[in-house]
Amino acid sequence: MAKPDLTIGLIGTGFMGRAHAFGFAAAPRVFELPMEIRLKSVADVTEEAAARAASAFGFERSTADWRSLIDDPEIDVIDITAPNALHKEMALAAIAASKHVYCEKPLAPLAADALEMAEAAEAAGVKTQVGFNYLCNPMFTLAREMIAAGDLGEIRGYRGLHCEDYMADPDAPWTFRHDPAGGGALADIGSHALATAEFLLGPIARVMGDCRTLIGERPDGRGGRRKVEVDDIARAFLTFESGVTGSIEANWLATGRTMQHDFEVYSSKGAIAFSGERLNELHVFSSADGPGRTGFRRIEAGPAHPPYGLFCVAPGHQLGFNDLKAIEVAGYVTAIAGLSDEPFGFRKGARIQTLVETILASSAAGAWRDVPG
Amino acid sequence: MAKPDLTIGLIGTGFMGRAHAFGFAAAPRVFELPMEIRLKSVADVTEEAAARAASAFGFERSTADWRSLIDDPEIDVIDITAPNALHKEMALAAIAASKHVYCEKPLAPLAADALEMAEAAEAAGVKTQVGFNYLCNPMFTLAREMIAAGDLGEIRGYRGLHCEDYMADPDAPWTFRHDPAGGGALADIGSHALATAEFLLGPIARVMGDCRTLIGERPDGRGGRRKVEVDDIARAFLTFESGVTGSIEANWLATGRTMQHDFEVYSSKGAIAFSGERLNELHVFSSADGPGRTGFRRIEAGPAHPPYGLFCVAPGHQLGFNDLKAIEVAGYVTAIAGLSDEPFGFRKGARIQTLVETILASSAAGAWRDVPG
Amino acid sequence: MAKPDLTIGLIGTGFMGRAHAFGFAAAPRVFELPMEIRLKSVADVTEEAAARAASAFGFERSTADWRSLIDDPEIDVIDITAPNALHKEMALAAIAASKHVYCEKPLAPLAADALEMAEAAEAAGVKTQVGFNYLCNPMFTLAREMIAAGDLGEIRGYRGLHCEDYMADPDAPWTFRHDPAGGGALADIGSHALATAEFLLGPIARVMGDCRTLIGERPDGRGGRRKVEVDDIARAFLTFESGVTGSIEANWLATGRTMQHDFEVYSSKGAIAFSGERLNELHVFSSADGPGRTGFRRIEAGPAHPPYGLFCVAPGHQLGFNDLKAIEVAGYVTAIAGLSDEPFGFRKGARIQTLVETILASSAAGAWRDVPG
Amino acid sequence: MAKPDLTIGLIGTGFMGRAHAFGFAAAPRVFELPMEIRLKSVADVTEEAAARAASAFGFERSTADWRSLIDDPEIDVIDITAPNALHKEMALAAIAASKHVYCEKPLAPLAADALEMAEAAEAAGVKTQVGFNYLCNPMFTLAREMIAAGDLGEIRGYRGLHCEDYMADPDAPWTFRHDPAGGGALADIGSHALATAEFLLGPIARVMGDCRTLIGERPDGRGGRRKVEVDDIARAFLTFESGVTGSIEANWLATGRTMQHDFEVYSSKGAIAFSGERLNELHVFSSADGPGRTGFRRIEAGPAHPPYGLFCVAPGHQLGFNDLKAIEVAGYVTAIAGLSDEPFGFRKGARIQTLVETILASSAAGAWRDVPG
Repeated sequence: MAKPDLTIGLIGTGFMGRAHAFGFAAAPRVFELPMEIRLKSVADVTEEAAARAASAFGFERSTADWRSLIDDPEIDVIDITAPNALHKEMALAAIAASKHVYCEKPLAPLAADALEMAEAAEAAGVKTQVGFNYLCNPMFTLAREMIAAGDLGEIRGYRGLHCEDYMADPDAPWTFRHDPAGGGALADIGSHALATAEFLLGPIARVMGDCRTLIGERPDGRGGRRKVEVDDIARAFLTFESGVTGSIEANWLATGRTMQHDFEVYSSKGAIAFSGERLNELHVFSSADGPGRTGFRRIEAGPAHPPYGLFCVAPGHQLGFNDLKAIEVAGYVTAIAGLSDEPFGFRKGARIQTLVETILASSAAGAWRDVPG
Repeated sequence: MAKPDLTIGLIGTGFMGRAHAFGFAAAPRVFELPMEIRLKSVADVTEEAAARAASAFGFERSTADWRSLIDDPEIDVIDITAPNALHKEMALAAIAASKHVYCEKPLAPLAADALEMAEAAEAAGVKTQVGFNYLCNPMFTLAREMIAAGDLGEIRGYRGLHCEDYMADPDAPWTFRHDPAGGGALADIGSHALATAEFLLGPIARVMGDCRTLIGERPDGRGGRRKVEVDDIARAFLTFESGVTGSIEANWLATGRTMQHDFEVYSSKGAIAFSGERLNELHVFSSADGPGRTGFRRIEAGPAHPPYGLFCVAPGHQLGFNDLKAIEVAGYVTAIAGLSDEPFGFRKGARIQTLVETILASSAAGAWRDVPG
Repeated sequence: MAKPDLTIGLIGTGFMGRAHAFGFAAAPRVFELPMEIRLKSVADVTEEAAARAASAFGFERSTADWRSLIDDPEIDVIDITAPNALHKEMALAAIAASKHVYCEKPLAPLAADALEMAEAAEAAGVKTQVGFNYLCNPMFTLAREMIAAGDLGEIRGYRGLHCEDYMADPDAPWTFRHDPAGGGALADIGSHALATAEFLLGPIARVMGDCRTLIGERPDGRGGRRKVEVDDIARAFLTFESGVTGSIEANWLATGRTMQHDFEVYSSKGAIAFSGERLNELHVFSSADGPGRTGFRRIEAGPAHPPYGLFCVAPGHQLGFNDLKAIEVAGYVTAIAGLSDEPFGFRKGARIQTLVETILASSAAGAWRDVPG
Repeated sequence: MAKPDLTIGLIGTGFMGRAHAFGFAAAPRVFELPMEIRLKSVADVTEEAAARAASAFGFERSTADWRSLIDDPEIDVIDITAPNALHKEMALAAIAASKHVYCEKPLAPLAADALEMAEAAEAAGVKTQVGFNYLCNPMFTLAREMIAAGDLGEIRGYRGLHCEDYMADPDAPWTFRHDPAGGGALADIGSHALATAEFLLGPIARVMGDCRTLIGERPDGRGGRRKVEVDDIARAFLTFESGVTGSIEANWLATGRTMQHDFEVYSSKGAIAFSGERLNELHVFSSADGPGRTGFRRIEAGPAHPPYGLFCVAPGHQLGFNDLKAIEVAGYVTAIAGLSDEPFGFRKGARIQTLVETILASSAAGAWRDVPG
């Protein structure tokens, strides 16, 4: 009963490439995966970088030509952690070669491109995944289950945040994240806040945005300055299809915040509060606790919250950021094996881009907008 | 060097009447006030209620006729804690009698009325005060001073909340707080969030509101149901005159929240975070703390934060809600004595009503609105 | 139905004198007291200080001769906030004059003296009170009630702390708190930790102490240095009569701590945790919350926790340190009126001194000691 | 420049066996290790269990005969996660075969045995490691560095805890952890509290223990009851060689606690507080922050705290329990390569057992004891 192999070709070896490599190494140690992950080949822009990554990440081979991974019949999955602007070309090529595609977020800078990718994948029948790893947190699953089970009664309000401070320094250089085509705080981290909002409460129907540029130019890396037109802070009012209303904020200038991926859900029977600064805790309030005994309850992640127990048999010992990547990988491998739905496929990735663009358009118009699709 | 007397006539003996009585009793024990407070007379709708209050609150006399306080030459200050709808009539009568007027918030249900009251007081040269006691928190003063002193550098973003759950029960009856003329979560508690926002960052120039009614009818107290049209949840984007942007939310259906009067200020050099759930703490982040040593610092209220030291010589021993009322009273008495400006006079109270109405109008229009004045 | 008067003579006008004055002013505004408090006369070492205090605290008269208060037939209660070394003489004189006595903690530096005072008061039939105001916190009452009601099942362990940093500076001068007769961190603040332990879990039967002097000499205020022999840090193991075991620590060198009056109770069914740094919160864990749903619940003080509701009708608005003093005063007045037992009379005050001395003796011997009485 | 191989033979496949397997898989993805880890063979009591583990953990071979690993010339490191009672026999056999030995804690139930193992390893010149993974937390390194650098000035007091609730149920069966030879809360988790105390503040010279059995018998798994004589709660006063004093508590009945591995260090210039419940935070107080600006600063783990940055380039994203195991593995591999000292070798493991036994002996005697060695 040997498991079938699942061979990986990784494109890109930066922060997220490393995180994926960690996920591929850790997932089989934690989960009983239905397939055997084989790290076949890794591509980067130079032979040296690729070779270094192959050694560091445990891949068999390396190449400076990402197209060679596409052409390689020994590779089942193309994993894209290259710059955002290249995602579409790479993914479409991989899909055309009938390979499964795992792509870091954002799926593509523009929603139309992301949708094209999703449709191509569906037409080709390949399995896809976009790296929204925060959704893999067992505490998110708990929150969603409590909401879905009606433990909270009728949902009445939502607040979501994703604020960090990695762009707070005005002398930090212009990067692809500042490119008007797909850049900005809303696209980069607001996308997480939007994914979480829909994960918990279902589709968003209407939005009203307020997107602001504060640092109007940045060093261009060649001694000059380059104009920045993307949002540094983006706020949005949300109306969900269910009628629930809420808000999100994305802010990459939030000095002092490193992982303020927070949400609060209020309802007729209770409330849920989460902060990404303490990713192993869910704070739950239940009116049923009785007079003088109510309070927000700090639930610590434990074996009662799958798949935590596969990482550690004891509660409260805490998962880390990289563990969420291992959960993401396991979910994708299980989907490829046909044992579950895609956890967060290209269709969902495109959806997030659509939300981002609708909020930006709403902000520009100063008016509410319906979310297409 | 006997101090001059300052005689008080109180109208209204409910929750806030009691809080004012506490403030009048406590303030002279804590502060060296320039005047001697004398609790002259208290009025309520029945003789019995008024007499009971006189005994409980320590007033010399009582009456069922509030107008007799206005006519009483022995009374210097009319203190109004009666229902909101009566504020205007009472205050204008008091002003006409050249009395100082201390009025609970909201100054009046409608901004136009509040403005009329402010102008009348200014014309009459009497001193006024509206009870925005959260602003009396020494931690607020600390936050404002740090901002004003430039400790935070350039301010970049603001988030404010005032969420509680006292209207979360749909079977709680219709009250004056649900009256379309001046009711709603935004007017009732969003007003605090707005006062705090301007206290910290100066005038708000433009707003975009999203105000929602969730519980569309409530028991009318006579066996029937009464339609509710005021907002249960109100959100607003804010643009301050300084150019800083931010948001607030008011929510009186926030199950589990009893005092979520929170704010967060982000800036080029740091951040400040406060929660009303822990009113004796200010959390301050400073980039100057150096690599690997930065973090939000939990500053506990102490004698270094006036007037805390007048309440207790030891830091960390904590002030309570009623202590803030004593500070409010002390500030007003000092202003009446001519030793300081009015801490929060009618002009400021009217300002808050204007903000509330502009947000409501913006929400109704689905568009940004300039704040008048 | 006029209430009988209860006339007060206060000795001492420092930090605690002011806190008592606050309590006398606030208690009648909050509680429906069975007697009318009259602030008759205040004594301090000079006429000037006494007169200043009379004005600031609202007393009718002042004197530099505390004995004149004892002799004054118009005074019902002698309230002693003078230095510890004088408590015994003053209290015995007051008791001999058949006056009720309210005395700040410690009742006397030495347990034998404290016991003598308790016995004298009992013999004279006067009502006494020692100022252990932390016990007046509604959250303490809640904790005790939950324990007594069996909500926690069998109690298994206890940890208590009272740590502050007011002696952390080695250049702070020698004071009466450093006097070997009754001084030290254990006597000064460990006494609170011991009072809380017995309040919650009943009598302590055996102790093992570890008391340490770290700052061996301090400025004597006259240019020289004076030897310090009292404990700066005191730890003790405790065995309660019930068989439960636990520990306490008192530390007045705990840099950064201003009110670490904390306790944790563990039991077969749950746990309770409290921190004096957040005096309006009780954290309660119940195993009954069910798999995957358990967690420490942050209960915020509210009207469900008497007498909070007399201070504020809304939960979560927070009491302060001085409010606890008002509760203490109300409890004492009620006891004097014969409507309740003494909340914390001289007998209990003497008990705390006995515990302190037994721990010190145990530490000196390096061995466990039974607690007398 | 191919790296030399480091071949592993693992004995035991339970909770800790899995954690080690995770560490072996993750460490090379995170660190640039000087050697290539090869998972050679895994042993368990049955062929089936061993084979299952080989597949799950990624080992090449499996066996039901642990001695075959010792005899295998292809294996460099024997990794022991078998029951405690077997550690000594296995380790001595491995040392005799000149293999490096990695052993889960406790090194051996009895200190004398642990010392014998340490001496054997030193005589054989092999590298050893005991699994005290909490010490691998970057926040611990930060705390130790701040103390060593004198940032805190003179250390004045210490409190350490390790409390969990995994034995709180009296119907949980008797296990090897209840064996009087090496069992008990102090040995099982108090050992962590002791390791942390010495990691931060150096050797402990004297102890006074208070060790208590609360659940006197447990189901024996065969329908009967078995007597329990080991400690459920253990407290100790500590005197460090430096003269600093402190305390620890170990408690495995602490209902509601899952990872209360906490410590607090107080000093002349500041304080440090850590809770294992939030392993990515260190709370630091510095008197130097200035009047009115001091407070405990919540430092979040980030790239400034090596080796965090190898796991994630962004601060605040949080490490998990298993990541600490990867750090532990990396430290050991580096030591085997001769590039660093053993992070926590058998000598240190034996030291912890000595501390445990001395505290137990002190408790039994009711008197202070010097720590041997």
